[in-house]
Formats: sequence, C-alpha cells, structure tokens
Amino acid sequence: MSAIDELTAEFAKLPGIGRKTATRLTYHLLKQPRATVVQLARAVQGVADRVGSCSACGNYSESDPCVLCLDPKRDPRVLCVVEEAFDIEAIEQTGEFRGLYHVLGGHLSPLDGIGPDELRIGALTERLNNGTRVEEVIVATNPSMEGEVTATYLRGVLAPVGVRITRIALGLPVGGDLGYADKVTIAQALSARREMSA
Amino acid sequence: MSAIDELTAEFAKLPGIGRKTATRLTYHLLKQPRATVVQLARAVQGVADRVGSCSACGNYSESDPCVLCLDPKRDPRVLCVVEEAFDIEAIEQTGEFRGLYHVLGGHLSPLDGIGPDELRIGALTERLNNGTRVEEVIVATNPSMEGEVTATYLRGVLAPVGVRITRIALGLPVGGDLGYADKVTIAQALSARREMSA
Repeated sequence: MSAIDELTAEFAKLPGIGRKTATRLTYHLLKQPRATVVQLARAVQGVADRVGSCSACGNYSESDPCVLCLDPKRDPRVLCVVEEAFDIEAIEQTGEFRGLYHVLGGHLSPLDGIGPDELRIGALTERLNNGTRVEEVIVATNPSMEGEVTATYLRGVLAPVGVRITRIALGLPVGGDLGYADKVTIAQALSARREMSA
Repeated sequence: MSAIDELTAEFAKLPGIGRKTATRLTYHLLKQPRATVVQLARAVQGVADRVGSCSACGNYSESDPCVLCLDPKRDPRVLCVVEEAFDIEAIEQTGEFRGLYHVLGGHLSPLDGIGPDELRIGALTERLNNGTRVEEVIVATNPSMEGEVTATYLRGVLAPVGVRITRIALGLPVGGDLGYADKVTIAQALSARREMSA
C-alpha cells in the first residue's frame, strides 16, 4: 500500500472521520512543510510512549499519581466519579470543581459483557475505605440509560461506606430551546424543578 | 506541554477539526492498544518520508514519474488539468477518465499573490510543446470564480499550441434538487442546456 493510502486508512479508523475526510486530511498534510508532518507523527508517538494511567484515580497521566491527585490545592473530601477520563477534561474546563476524580472506565452494560468487575468500582470502594477523607461522592456518569443504571448500582455499593452520595443535575441544557428538547429531558426537568427564591 | 495536550494541539491544526474534536480523537487513541497508535504515528511519518511529487504531472507520488504517468494503459493524448493533486483522487474514483493529468498546484489569485508563475502553467505548455502526443486538454479547475478565471487564462495560453481545449461541464449536481440549487448554478444549467435525443 502506498504511504498516502496507508495514512488515509489510518485516519479513516478514527471516530467521526469517513473515507472522504481521511483523504482530505492526508492531502492537507502533503501540502504542509515536512516539519509540520513530522511534528504530528511525534505527537502521536508521544502519546503511545509517555502516557499511562494514574493508579489512584484512573485518569490518563504521564506521572503516577497524576497532577490532579498530587495537587495540594484540590479538596480530597469531594470525589467526582466519571465514566471516562475524557469527561474529566470537560468538567475541568468549567473551573467549578476543585475536588478529586475517579474514572470508572465505562458504564455497566451486561449485553456487552461489562459488569462491575470490568469497571474500576472495586478500586473506588477500596479508595473510600482506606483512610481517605472523602465526605461526598458526586456520581457524574452520563445522563444515558447505561449511565443511570451505573449510578444506581454505585449508590447501592457505596451506601455502606457512609459517605454523602449525590448525582449531577439532569434537566434542560443551558441555552437550549424547550420546544426542541426531547420529552425525557423535559419530564426530568419538570420532576426535578426547584423553588425559586423571592 | 503534556503529550495529551501536544497531540490535541496538533490534531486541532488539521482542517475541519476543532478543539473539541481534537480532544475526542486524542482520547480515542488513548483507549486503543499501543500498536494502533504507533501504526498511526508511522503512517504520518511515512507520508513525510516517502512521498514526493511527479516531475511530469505534479501529482504526489513515491516514484518519479508517478504510477499514473508510467501506466502504459493510459491514453497520453488526453490531458486533464486540475488545481490540486487531491482532485485526481476524486476523478480516478469515477473510473471515467483514462488519460493523464497535470496538477497546477492551485488557482490564479492575484490578491494572494498567486499569478501564473506560482502555478505549474509553464510546465504545462512545455509538456505540450515537447513532442508529447496530447490532442485534447480538459480544463478541470474548480467551478469557482478563481477556477473559472484560471480556466479562461489557460485557454488563452494554450490556444497557440493548437490542441483541442475543453472545460468540464457545469450544471446541476446529479441527485441534487433544483429547488435548493443556487441561482448561479441554475443559470449555468439553463444556458448550457443540451438537445435531448428523441
């Protein structure tokens, strides 16, 4: 296979990138200076070579523990449980959370053979039992059916630990349009309604 | 900068890939086996190391002349002039063209400082004059204003050579909807109308 076809095939394996886009990306690179292309190659290789996971929270990291777990300015009393390390990036960008994280590595999905043992749930209970100062666990699994099932399961598992267990709020997305929202979200937004302060 | 941030930054430089998509691609790779990531890195590097251009047609190639120029089954009497090597890929996929190509490397764009000398137009006239058997030049520059200007310029330059000069047809795209087509395309489709055989 030619170098052009090889790269196009590799690009096309990435999510959301079809054959046409993959070709466009390859030809874009062909027009760039060699150094630019080499820089991309090195960056990809760098991820393969330098990134591992944090044994504490499960986040991707070049050090173990990761920078978030090591940061003395973060509050170890609040633990936010997410499905994927990718979700941490999204939460960090809000600047609203200053606690620590715990990555499950997915959600419960019996049909795909993913039970509690396939997720980092044992590591979570261990972490809570082993003398950490966690007072609240925020369950931030996705607002999907699998995310809800996983959240419910976690509530059951964590109840004996004796920490406060909360769930991120589900409702209408900010800036969204009620008329275009799906009925499940609207129902959720109605049932989770709050008193308005005067 | 961390390996994750570096790769995300590199991905975000690619056309059509924003910050969010770049992050998603990076985290997708992080979930893959190391070998998959290394394969992508090598494919990118391979394009930097192995691909050059064909001195005859200007197409990207790992050999010089390229496989298309060397193919004895292709008809050297018809030359298709395109703006970018990327366009060759699109034409080849139709399987409708069996002649040779000539890549201009862009279109005339005086505002961007791209005149005839910045394109491979000199190489084209040389190619036509130097004893090749070209009988027809198909001008397949883009159906954009710049592509039209370039096509008109080429017609002027190639007229003295004494070959047949044609332009790819402009009109309604196949499978398109007349009601949604832009007025310039409709006007073009009307003025370029053809007799229907009985």
